[in-house]
Amino acid sequence: MKRKWLCFVLAMLTLTIYPVSAFAADGPTAPDLQIGLDTAFTYLAFILVFFMQAGFAMLEAGSVRMKNAGHVAGKTVLTLAIASICFWALGFGLGFGNGNSFFGTTGFGYGGDSMASSFESLAFSDVTLNVKFLFQMAFAAVSLAIVSGGMAERAKLSVYIIFGILFSVFIYPVVAHWVWGGGWLATMGMQDYAGSTVVHLTGATAAVVATILLKPRLGKFNKEGKPVIIPGHNQVFTVLGVIILWFGWFGFNPGSALSPMGGFFGYVALTTNIAAAAGGLAALVASWLYFGKSDIPAMLNGVLAALVAITGACAFVEPWAAFVIGLVAGAFTFMTSQWLERAGLDDPIYAFSVHGIAGMWGAVSTGLFATPELVETVGIGKAGLFYGGGVHQLGVQVLGVIGTFAFVAILSFVFLYIMKLVSGIRVTEEEELMGLDISEHGTYGYPEQMKLISESESQKK
Amino acid sequence: MKRKWLCFVLAMLTLTIYPVSAFAADGPTAPDLQIGLDTAFTYLAFILVFFMQAGFAMLEAGSVRMKNAGHVAGKTVLTLAIASICFWALGFGLGFGNGNSFFGTTGFGYGGDSMASSFESLAFSDVTLNVKFLFQMAFAAVSLAIVSGGMAERAKLSVYIIFGILFSVFIYPVVAHWVWGGGWLATMGMQDYAGSTVVHLTGATAAVVATILLKPRLGKFNKEGKPVIIPGHNQVFTVLGVIILWFGWFGFNPGSALSPMGGFFGYVALTTNIAAAAGGLAALVASWLYFGKSDIPAMLNGVLAALVAITGACAFVEPWAAFVIGLVAGAFTFMTSQWLERAGLDDPIYAFSVHGIAGMWGAVSTGLFATPELVETVGIGKAGLFYGGGVHQLGVQVLGVIGTFAFVAILSFVFLYIMKLVSGIRVTEEEELMGLDISEHGTYGYPEQMKLISESESQKK
Amino acid sequence: MKRKWLCFVLAMLTLTIYPVSAFAADGPTAPDLQIGLDTAFTYLAFILVFFMQAGFAMLEAGSVRMKNAGHVAGKTVLTLAIASICFWALGFGLGFGNGNSFFGTTGFGYGGDSMASSFESLAFSDVTLNVKFLFQMAFAAVSLAIVSGGMAERAKLSVYIIFGILFSVFIYPVVAHWVWGGGWLATMGMQDYAGSTVVHLTGATAAVVATILLKPRLGKFNKEGKPVIIPGHNQVFTVLGVIILWFGWFGFNPGSALSPMGGFFGYVALTTNIAAAAGGLAALVASWLYFGKSDIPAMLNGVLAALVAITGACAFVEPWAAFVIGLVAGAFTFMTSQWLERAGLDDPIYAFSVHGIAGMWGAVSTGLFATPELVETVGIGKAGLFYGGGVHQLGVQVLGVIGTFAFVAILSFVFLYIMKLVSGIRVTEEEELMGLDISEHGTYGYPEQMKLISESESQKK
Repeated sequence: MKRKWLCFVLAMLTLTIYPVSAFAADGPTAPDLQIGLDTAFTYLAFILVFFMQAGFAMLEAGSVRMKNAGHVAGKTVLTLAIASICFWALGFGLGFGNGNSFFGTTGFGYGGDSMASSFESLAFSDVTLNVKFLFQMAFAAVSLAIVSGGMAERAKLSVYIIFGILFSVFIYPVVAHWVWGGGWLATMGMQDYAGSTVVHLTGATAAVVATILLKPRLGKFNKEGKPVIIPGHNQVFTVLGVIILWFGWFGFNPGSALSPMGGFFGYVALTTNIAAAAGGLAALVASWLYFGKSDIPAMLNGVLAALVAITGACAFVEPWAAFVIGLVAGAFTFMTSQWLERAGLDDPIYAFSVHGIAGMWGAVSTGLFATPELVETVGIGKAGLFYGGGVHQLGVQVLGVIGTFAFVAILSFVFLYIMKLVSGIRVTEEEELMGLDISEHGTYGYPEQMKLISESESQKK
Repeated sequence: MKRKWLCFVLAMLTLTIYPVSAFAADGPTAPDLQIGLDTAFTYLAFILVFFMQAGFAMLEAGSVRMKNAGHVAGKTVLTLAIASICFWALGFGLGFGNGNSFFGTTGFGYGGDSMASSFESLAFSDVTLNVKFLFQMAFAAVSLAIVSGGMAERAKLSVYIIFGILFSVFIYPVVAHWVWGGGWLATMGMQDYAGSTVVHLTGATAAVVATILLKPRLGKFNKEGKPVIIPGHNQVFTVLGVIILWFGWFGFNPGSALSPMGGFFGYVALTTNIAAAAGGLAALVASWLYFGKSDIPAMLNGVLAALVAITGACAFVEPWAAFVIGLVAGAFTFMTSQWLERAGLDDPIYAFSVHGIAGMWGAVSTGLFATPELVETVGIGKAGLFYGGGVHQLGVQVLGVIGTFAFVAILSFVFLYIMKLVSGIRVTEEEELMGLDISEHGTYGYPEQMKLISESESQKK
Repeated sequence: MKRKWLCFVLAMLTLTIYPVSAFAADGPTAPDLQIGLDTAFTYLAFILVFFMQAGFAMLEAGSVRMKNAGHVAGKTVLTLAIASICFWALGFGLGFGNGNSFFGTTGFGYGGDSMASSFESLAFSDVTLNVKFLFQMAFAAVSLAIVSGGMAERAKLSVYIIFGILFSVFIYPVVAHWVWGGGWLATMGMQDYAGSTVVHLTGATAAVVATILLKPRLGKFNKEGKPVIIPGHNQVFTVLGVIILWFGWFGFNPGSALSPMGGFFGYVALTTNIAAAAGGLAALVASWLYFGKSDIPAMLNGVLAALVAITGACAFVEPWAAFVIGLVAGAFTFMTSQWLERAGLDDPIYAFSVHGIAGMWGAVSTGLFATPELVETVGIGKAGLFYGGGVHQLGVQVLGVIGTFAFVAILSFVFLYIMKLVSGIRVTEEEELMGLDISEHGTYGYPEQMKLISESESQKK
């Protein structure tokens, strides 16, 4: 009988002591810990993506002339403000709320974690909804920042504000819903891990529509129609911008794993970094061959283009494929930026080449390079053409690109064209010549330096 | 008997195998894991707050003239150095050490985690003391950075160093003790989640005393006493500074949860971001109405003012209230900065409007908007006036604001007035005209550009 | 019999319910959680070290003249690209692969976590191999960024590219293997927690060899051989660079713990920060005494030198010793930078003083200040001279410094000397005068400002 009692006591002890020793009296459970860890990890990813706006500010400001630098930089803060408010009020619900194949219809006026049931498309992860909201909001803001680039140096501030609101409500969330919110492209198995299509192609398509409707900057093309180089005023800013963006991309892509458990996000970071490096080198070499001199802005755009391309593919491809995707993105973006310019397009920060062309290439690349093992790990779509998957996935990816481009282009055109008819979208010639800092805001971004420039110009007359 | 043995063996197995399988032979326990996670999370918050100094450097340098830019930027590094050493030697003990209702009397010469018993006020969290120290030190450095702004373009470097030491030892830690170290305002239940009062109002009050004692910069007011605009030299810097600060605030406010467990920090990040966006938009609109042109520095200050205001309230209010708090902060800061300037105050980077006025509004706002549920979650104070809490909490908040303002203003005045009598606190008129880069440090921050400016000026003569 | 059954059932329940309640049906185990947490923590450290390249870009660009700023900044992106690709293809295997006492011979063409068995030297930590790879790669890139500084304003871009590849393959990984990859210095118990020797001395030694072979910049020494000050063009950039580097160092040093468990990384962060602050103050005072004016670049270099010195010692010394190490590093670096310049060395960003001299001091300092307790915690080497350890550890540290310096200096000299003979390593006098932005890349980094400068210069003629 004593043994029985001993046995009983031991079993009871097991029941009571274990939780005490392993988890403390009212300590955390393992799932609680994982929620905490996953949420903290995703929050880190969010702040990195948020910080990419500092990169855009420096990249875009450095790529324009001094008379527009304050205006262009300031617009980035406006981008954050517009995206934050619009995504909170409407965008999150339209993009990720429960709804149909085209947009969500629940979850407007986002108010906190208690709204989780309105966002079934995000239920796959244990990250708290507040942090999912912030992460997705930061993506929306990146997409809008790309649009801003296409409008540089000639669009009215009010046009950017109004179009920014429309884009953040009616354009970006819809595409996000298609691919990530349970919409028709998600159903078809489109592979877009962190948004080559959803974020970059969407922003770039709106940017190129704006670029076309705004027409080239004064002086961009000479009398023979040949493009004239209008160099950005500060390469140190553009370098800083690109390093910040590369840094931020370590939240963008690996953060899309929404968890550090199992370490898969580290693999995504590995492919992302290899592609970025390859893209920079490819574009540097391409510019060296083409211009006879290595071109720093070309190298910088090569890094960005490769990052854009690998954004969709990072979780689906092997390191060597990431290297190839980066090389192709870097070289191809350089060439297309030259071609588009000679074709009459004036895209001051090459938004369409870097985010659009490379975004398309990134979307298509998984149709070629996605491996069966990684596709299984991620659980979306099928293997690519080079890994025995046939052309099925390639077809889905191409369809996603065409669908996204068409939808964004049409809606952007409609919005901007109406604004063009109603109030005009471009500043006057006189305002453009004096620069948007003074014409739109009443003060120069660089008052002391602009004074020297204007003195120098008046002396020459 | 066999069953008895089986039973015994199973119980023993349970005792021995479970820790092996669930936690590995000498694996971590759940509380260990939580300590690791909470400490890592708070460390992330610390480095974000630390990085805010880069934001202050860019914001303050961009807001002054080129001849003072190196001096102003360099002072930020000095801010970090002074705050680090003073907080290590004395500040942490005075602020958070065990003591009386006014300051702590233990824990000087901070030496590591083994001093935990000297800091009972911080025992509520399982974060290791080293990281708590770093987090609090970074807050002290932010408060000092605000002071630096009020002294821009005319205070002697030596005055900033000496006052910085006094502020970091005798002023900031005392206020921190009152609210966060178990002092009299903590006892009263003052709500200041991340420091609208403790950090921002304290820094801003010292700044405005310095501003008054230093008197306006040469040329700030014309012969009729009307303020003359002295624009900052680089809006791209100020934009970068504000984005860095906004980014850093994602450590400042949500990090004050000291843990990602339960995800409450994500809620804090949500309200913080909504307020910031609203503040930027409100100030932009206010400036548009007031000047007839949208003003970029006004928008930037609106973002900052809203962040300052929501700092105290972020954990206590609903998203819509955060939106309102941000709107009011943005618009009100813009108006007060204009009024104060017309009243004769020359505050070069609007330190008092942005951190002081908005800090007061933030403190008061929880007395209005704090909800019963959130007050219970955080466990400090009572609900606000608009949520059926009556005027009790509002009274506590107003008392906290008055007490802090009075204490900081008096001590700052005494310190600076003595220095003014003994050695003077302002550079000579000649030094101010040539700029503090050359007068205090012997070289320009921008030697090549200043050469152009001086050539241009000598040509005109 | 009933009791027996009850006992049996309870034991079975224990076996089945516990995992369900504490870890959920298929929930994570505690070791899984720790792997996730450690990997996320190390990833945070990686991105901080990665971001230090933004700091180098700003520091180096700000420290040179406007005509070279785009070139110098752009090289930083190239540094990242070269280090990323070389470390992926060869460097990681040579540095950390299994091999002999001098270099690794496994793990080339790094392809992911499945290669873990090729990297026994890294098996001590549970962080996933992908993130270990990224962390080590970022260190290699920092070392290369230091080399870049020594070549500023006169080396051909092609020379930097070729030498950068050679350095990233044949130099850095070998030293890393010696100390961290299980090589001969690891066997001897050399203490270098985060790389005073491995990262900083290695980079600085290559930089000083380049500096000597390149010869001084035109105009650096006057006809009497006295050094002429060539001030950097933008102190705001250098300040921003230093704050970013200080921030990044919170990944560099504490991140080397590879885990937040137990909180030891917080101690490392504490000593790191105290040293940095002390170094800045010491250099500021030293410059004040020496020049009669406080010098901002001197203060900035003091911060960096202290960070370099504490990098190796941070985990082995007490806070007061960190303060002393920082003070000495700050003051000594200032003095040696003046002596080296007067001895005829033209090191434009003081790479050798800041990273080399301070790196040596940091290595030696653990031989003096390492405490027995901390040595036991870390598990490397013995206590220092001042803590009763005798001269043993000091001897090991000195040997490590001499070995590293000799190896890097000889190999760097051979590589660069061959390149000098074959193609030359320096741009032509004409190219140097016009600046490397235009001569190497065909456009100025600051086109509008350089136009003003050239107009001003042509007017004087």
